[in-house]
Amino acid sequence: MDFLKPETVLDLKNIRDELLRMEDTIIFKFIERSHFPTCPTVYSKNDPKLPIRDFDGSFLDWALMHSEITHSRIRRFESPDQTPFFPDSIQEPILPSIHYPRVLASYSSEINFNDSIKDVYIKQIIPMISKYDGESWENFGSVATIDIECLQSLSRRIHFGKFVAEAKFQADRAAYSKLIQEKDIEGIYQSITNSAVEEKILERLCVKAEVYGVDPTNKEGYRKITPEYLVKIYKELVIPLTKQVEVDYLLRRLEC
Amino acid sequence: MDFLKPETVLDLKNIRDELLRMEDTIIFKFIERSHFPTCPTVYSKNDPKLPIRDFDGSFLDWALMHSEITHSRIRRFESPDQTPFFPDSIQEPILPSIHYPRVLASYSSEINFNDSIKDVYIKQIIPMISKYDGESWENFGSVATIDIECLQSLSRRIHFGKFVAEAKFQADRAAYSKLIQEKDIEGIYQSITNSAVEEKILERLCVKAEVYGVDPTNKEGYRKITPEYLVKIYKELVIPLTKQVEVDYLLRRLEC
Ligand SMILES: N[C@@H](Cc1c[nH]c2ccccc12)C(=O)O
Ligand SMILES: N[C@@H](Cc1c[nH]c2ccccc12)C(=O)O
Repeated sequence: MDFLKPETVLDLKNIRDELLRMEDTIIFKFIERSHFPTCPTVYSKNDPKLPIRDFDGSFLDWALMHSEITHSRIRRFESPDQTPFFPDSIQEPILPSIHYPRVLASYSSEINFNDSIKDVYIKQIIPMISKYDGESWENFGSVATIDIECLQSLSRRIHFGKFVAEAKFQADRAAYSKLIQEKDIEGIYQSITNSAVEEKILERLCVKAEVYGVDPTNKEGYRKITPEYLVKIYKELVIPLTKQVEVDYLLRRLEC
Repeated sequence: MDFLKPETVLDLKNIRDELLRMEDTIIFKFIERSHFPTCPTVYSKNDPKLPIRDFDGSFLDWALMHSEITHSRIRRFESPDQTPFFPDSIQEPILPSIHYPRVLASYSSEINFNDSIKDVYIKQIIPMISKYDGESWENFGSVATIDIECLQSLSRRIHFGKFVAEAKFQADRAAYSKLIQEKDIEGIYQSITNSAVEEKILERLCVKAEVYGVDPTNKEGYRKITPEYLVKIYKELVIPLTKQVEVDYLLRRLEC
């Protein structure tokens, strides 16, 4: 897939390959997070135990916002597959623009689920993937850095729903236009759902968690990721959020 | 291992566990890098094809330096296992200091192999782990971000030699003091080398590359990392650089 070549981006086979590759990335990052405890202080807003001068937010927010500011300067958010957590803080690139050809509808950057993703990650995913419930003061920086990687991978995965939606729309304009005009949200959900494909994703994740989560040279060693949790995270959070992105994207598709 | 508890840091069993864990981290990051081509422009200093205003260095240098500046503000380089690539650019923390107890000798932060690590990474490792030789303009940001993760993991692994050296020194002060006084570099090398352990590391890496580098649900799929290359990288670069860190550290150990 090459974002400079629109035809490769809207090819459903390429989209599926990319989603598959992202599974590995997400699992690898969850495994890195699994070495640390939950560290609630990292996510606590304006915590007096961790006072950050002139900043309104958590330690994670500070680190994530500054990472996004740096990346915005090297054009991260020009790319149609990237969605900022702090859209109001990012800056102008210091490099000449890349001028990506338009693949998605013009409103697409307005569809931003990152607040929900951050919320779900902190409240539901962290407890499932961390080592135990507790703090680790000397690792807050490492923890926040890995959290940023987890969040950015999840965000890219979930917002990829936009490409899926656009590809599906283009493949059957008539049917989708009708559903959209009728504001038939239920119908859109049904038309974008493929239960067999979802089942296959979950099965595959189970195998990957088994294989990647155990040291192959020491099978007695501890398991770094619980297959059932990974399946739960995808089934209850990642897949539903992706579909929500698809539906939101499609509902506005006749605007342009 | 807890850097707030010196006795856990100088326990050779803990050091070995930590080095083992770092193998997985390094392999996972190499796999992420393997999805992209070499991208020579990312590493080329002041390249007119990628002009960065008011900056002397490569695109990677710019991104790495800014990442280090942000991390320095949240105390990254207070931690004894962290070594900056841009020691002259890092800033004061915006948080209260952690006050790590001293574990290493006072000169330890002066032992900084990061310039060599960056050089070796760009010239020797990148060609072995990337997808093919070529550019990918729309991925320079992703590539630099992964390179930073690879470099920081390699740097942590290699500078861990300081903890290994300190633990060995404390376990046999008399013998090491004699070697150091006699400036017997060859003797120090011999005393810190354990060929059986090195052989085991290389064997383990081979297995891990086999397992982590292939999609377990599609064994016909392409291999993301070549076991022989990973072994070569450790055998010819990572292990020798770690030993150089150990020797440099030990040579000054009687200063304090
Ligand atoms: N482990 C230390 C040092 C550290 C490692 N990576 C970091 C990234 C950002 C800040 C600090 C760090 C900490 O978490 O504080
Ligand atoms: N793939 C795009 C966008 C991007 C992803 N991650 C990034 C990190 C930094 C800068 C840009 C990016 C690029 O590499 O340019």
